[in-house]
Amino acid sequence: MTTNSHDGVGHTGESIAVEPTVTDLPGHRLVLGADVPMRLVSGQLLGPFTVSYQTYGVLNADKSNAILVCHALTGDQYVAESHPVTGRPGWWERLVGPGLTINTDDYFVICVNVLAGCMGSAGPKDIDPRTGKQFGLNFPLITITDMVAAQRLVVEHLGITQLFAVIGGSMGAMQTLEWASRYPEMVYCAIPIAGAARHSAQNIAFHEVGRQAIMADPKWAGGDYYDDNDAPERGLAVARMAAHITYLSDSALHTKFGRNLQDRQAITFGFDADFQIESYLRHQGRSFVERFDANSYLYITRAMDYFDLAAEYNDNLPPAFEDSPVRFCLISFTSDWLFPTSESRRIVHALNAVAASVSFVEIETESGHDAFLLEEPEFFRILSGFLRGAADQRKLASAS
Amino acid sequence: MTTNSHDGVGHTGESIAVEPTVTDLPGHRLVLGADVPMRLVSGQLLGPFTVSYQTYGVLNADKSNAILVCHALTGDQYVAESHPVTGRPGWWERLVGPGLTINTDDYFVICVNVLAGCMGSAGPKDIDPRTGKQFGLNFPLITITDMVAAQRLVVEHLGITQLFAVIGGSMGAMQTLEWASRYPEMVYCAIPIAGAARHSAQNIAFHEVGRQAIMADPKWAGGDYYDDNDAPERGLAVARMAAHITYLSDSALHTKFGRNLQDRQAITFGFDADFQIESYLRHQGRSFVERFDANSYLYITRAMDYFDLAAEYNDNLPPAFEDSPVRFCLISFTSDWLFPTSESRRIVHALNAVAASVSFVEIETESGHDAFLLEEPEFFRILSGFLRGAADQRKLASAS
Repeated sequence: MTTNSHDGVGHTGESIAVEPTVTDLPGHRLVLGADVPMRLVSGQLLGPFTVSYQTYGVLNADKSNAILVCHALTGDQYVAESHPVTGRPGWWERLVGPGLTINTDDYFVICVNVLAGCMGSAGPKDIDPRTGKQFGLNFPLITITDMVAAQRLVVEHLGITQLFAVIGGSMGAMQTLEWASRYPEMVYCAIPIAGAARHSAQNIAFHEVGRQAIMADPKWAGGDYYDDNDAPERGLAVARMAAHITYLSDSALHTKFGRNLQDRQAITFGFDADFQIESYLRHQGRSFVERFDANSYLYITRAMDYFDLAAEYNDNLPPAFEDSPVRFCLISFTSDWLFPTSESRRIVHALNAVAASVSFVEIETESGHDAFLLEEPEFFRILSGFLRGAADQRKLASAS
Repeated sequence: MTTNSHDGVGHTGESIAVEPTVTDLPGHRLVLGADVPMRLVSGQLLGPFTVSYQTYGVLNADKSNAILVCHALTGDQYVAESHPVTGRPGWWERLVGPGLTINTDDYFVICVNVLAGCMGSAGPKDIDPRTGKQFGLNFPLITITDMVAAQRLVVEHLGITQLFAVIGGSMGAMQTLEWASRYPEMVYCAIPIAGAARHSAQNIAFHEVGRQAIMADPKWAGGDYYDDNDAPERGLAVARMAAHITYLSDSALHTKFGRNLQDRQAITFGFDADFQIESYLRHQGRSFVERFDANSYLYITRAMDYFDLAAEYNDNLPPAFEDSPVRFCLISFTSDWLFPTSESRRIVHALNAVAASVSFVEIETESGHDAFLLEEPEFFRILSGFLRGAADQRKLASAS
């Protein structure tokens, strides 16, 4: 079933300009699509619009040491520094930095906030100059292909003709695969972690629950909630809670929480958060709404749902990687039931079918899908080894 | 961690009377706790209160052929006939009836709507005579133990001293285990299907998401929504959608829906139900709210969360079945990730440790937790064989 087809969508007309609302974030901003608007997969034209990105390390003279990190659904460009809103550590701080697995003494690391995001790249909370109001649901639908197309413009702006590596977990893996498939000549190696070449029915189902939770909140108001500064926080928190369960494993929850009670000796025979797991989930919901826009959540989950690399090739995945010069390293985690190993294996089979260079490791861990964000020494070792080998092959002088 | 302790809860005081709001349902009604109120696990006293139940087949002369069927979270007493509200087939119509696996030509089948339910047994939508208003969250918290205690009163009212069998899936399995543990002399054989002796952290987490979805709906109004006849339908629908995913398996969803589109040729680049799985889930949510009370959903999910048979025994499960004369037959399903086989195995280990009579079969199926409600020939065969053997042993004359 073709779902990502470019055919049959024939919008042309005026380009949609996007005026950013968030302009004071640390890092870099770039206006794209000013001269030539970007054509989205939906057929709509976008531009001018802003993307925000962050970099770590120094780009070397021949611009060969760049690693593009692609963030996940609720991630952002603050990979290796404190989050400017929450003050919490960067989401890959344990992996990216001087002397770390992705060594910023050697590599120039780039991370772009995805289109439709809410950390400085064009999204539904930005202003539509045609109306002077925030877009809400009038923002055009963004696909993974569109996110990557915008990233490509950033990479070209930096004068980089080939990224040494593209890497990401979860939705970041989807972007990594899209990069390798769409712009193979621009990617030396690709490292999709805990990913998939398409979103499964079960994952679409969980996303739909999250969206319905947001849309059921009267404060969502059809997406038009910005004026009142009264966001659908309860709906978004429920969406986050449901999603959060899918990021962990049954056994991790059992080990971490079991049936332990929260600050009490006995159950209270009521609806308080008697159990630690309840208290933990409520906290996850509450803290998420401080940093995330509900409409962005709708848009980005939808982008993931629509992702299906094989769709353009009559539901065959191998042609998506035909003649690929890219060196692939796939990583999955045993207890990840959201993006299970079978999804990575499907990609490996497709890569094998076109004789691509591919390495694949399934890491034994209890941490579930979130393993790609956690301290996983085996994962770090595999990644480190692959990067070192690829750097040698690429003759990257400074790579340690 | 003791969570089901009877200690430390010392309510006495007045008994809580419950006036039923629903009185026109098919089947039987019984007023309980009129003379001697029932003491709930919470310590509160309940009575008089009504339970509704349904029966199929004929109780034999020595009252030895009764099978108590325990329903699941959103089930009810309409096991083997059309549902009086929805008109849909009874939830175990393919299993219970004349000539079927649970043959009502041979057995007298009883099913009681659980306490806190909304199909005629005392629950939060009933009237509190102290206020003349519907209870809402003022209804006392009900546990699985309380549900079973009420069922016991029904069984005694029918003059039955020993049930030939107690059987149920999911929360019905919890009740079955509670019966076998609490009233072993009243149970000849017990058949817990797709069950567990405690609710896991992951399952508590999913329930908490459902409850938060209901409570996030402003129409829930702290549980006090009955007067306006304007129930928190959107919140309840979201809760049902999230739960429904857990009843199925990833592979069943893949087989049944995959990424198929709903009545369209291409994605619409929007938030409509493009995918069949979305349309299906929305339908599940919508149709559920027609027949279920949101507060009942809160109460019954909470009862499941609190269930932990080992809690009274210092977190040891075997003592819950010490010297049990009950013949157990446990059944689990390979693709059930909500009540996985490991939970049944834990019960089997406990039963083995006290040398109880136990048979255990894991059925190979793709249908997930819902398998116990579906056409599963192997399941039916196992059940049929076990019942026949037990009936022979019990010397039930009329059992075929």
